Amino acid sequence: MQRGSLFVLSGPSGAGKGTICQKLLADTDIHLSISMTTRQPRQGEVHGISYYFTEEEDFLARVEAGGFLEYANVFGRYYGTPRDAVLEKLNEGKDVLLEIDVQGALQVKENFPEGILIFVLPPSLEELKKRIVGRGTETEDAIATRLGKALQEISFLDRYDYYVVNDDLDQAVDEVKSIIRSQSLKVADRAEALIAQYKEEN
Amino acid sequence: MQRGSLFVLSGPSGAGKGTICQKLLADTDIHLSISMTTRQPRQGEVHGISYYFTEEEDFLARVEAGGFLEYANVFGRYYGTPRDAVLEKLNEGKDVLLEIDVQGALQVKENFPEGILIFVLPPSLEELKKRIVGRGTETEDAIATRLGKALQEISFLDRYDYYVVNDDLDQAVDEVKSIIRSQSLKVADRAEALIAQYKEEN
Repeated sequence: MQRGSLFVLSGPSGAGKGTICQKLLADTDIHLSISMTTRQPRQGEVHGISYYFTEEEDFLARVEAGGFLEYANVFGRYYGTPRDAVLEKLNEGKDVLLEIDVQGALQVKENFPEGILIFVLPPSLEELKKRIVGRGTETEDAIATRLGKALQEISFLDRYDYYVVNDDLDQAVDEVKSIIRSQSLKVADRAEALIAQYKEEN
Repeated sequence: MQRGSLFVLSGPSGAGKGTICQKLLADTDIHLSISMTTRQPRQGEVHGISYYFTEEEDFLARVEAGGFLEYANVFGRYYGTPRDAVLEKLNEGKDVLLEIDVQGALQVKENFPEGILIFVLPPSLEELKKRIVGRGTETEDAIATRLGKALQEISFLDRYDYYVVNDDLDQAVDEVKSIIRSQSLKVADRAEALIAQYKEEN
């Protein structure tokens, strides 16, 4: 059986990676990676579906043991992508999707170089600004900070494998689908098994 | 402007690379590479469309000058893929498609490593045999020879970038389209230009 691939969908906040991710989950049989966290479950959240919930002591022991493809501490709570859960799916031949910020994606690439990093770009900073302003939840200062952060994140584009410009959502989704599909058509280390298949038949 | 890519569609005779190629030309704006040959034009063939027709002396001078991505002598006539014509299209930002046998594809990879080699596989040797027999033009000996050659060609799969199994034609065509599309989404050496674009805007 052919091993699955890990696709990391990432990019600045507001570029639309979340929406693309949802569309992919609806349209394809790719499997969403579930994060582990030390924060408390909220109403309706289910262990093993929304998150894997755990205690800080357990989380840090896992960090120590190299158990995460990436992790971060956000306002005192830990969040991470458990390595074993991802590898298990890949070994079952399933593709796995991880939606994450740029810092997290770069950590994944370091810990798991086979992961395919896809950068979701806004059509322009101007358009990104419009989208943030459109949400109506941010002060002018906060918007300037977010745009500065977006530009800084875009400067890491060279560490990524693929990029899609999220101008038209459907087109961006189709582009990510092409990337996912083409990955399963790469010869790479499958050559030997494929050749053997035809030789056996002879 | 983004440079185009060269896609080399190749595989054993009977696997269906020609049909896939025709579909791609009908459905996409990829540009077909035109071969140069020393054979005589046949009725209806047009110079610069069917082939570039030339004399042997000219052809061999071009070989000497490294003017071909690949070439071969078939029953005393030369056939080759002119490097300049391909590069010109790529530099215009156009993708170029080359349909060729396995030996030719391997030559292209050697002379132009950026070329994307796609192997068109039959679902099985048994199915390939059925297709060859179905044409009704070959003796039993000739069929055995062709199957042996096909198996030998498949053993070069490890030199290829991608493969598609031509079981269902439409699916195989879609797969090649995914490969072509994903190529244009690779970051690779485009990172700097893309980053600069967002920086300039700031």
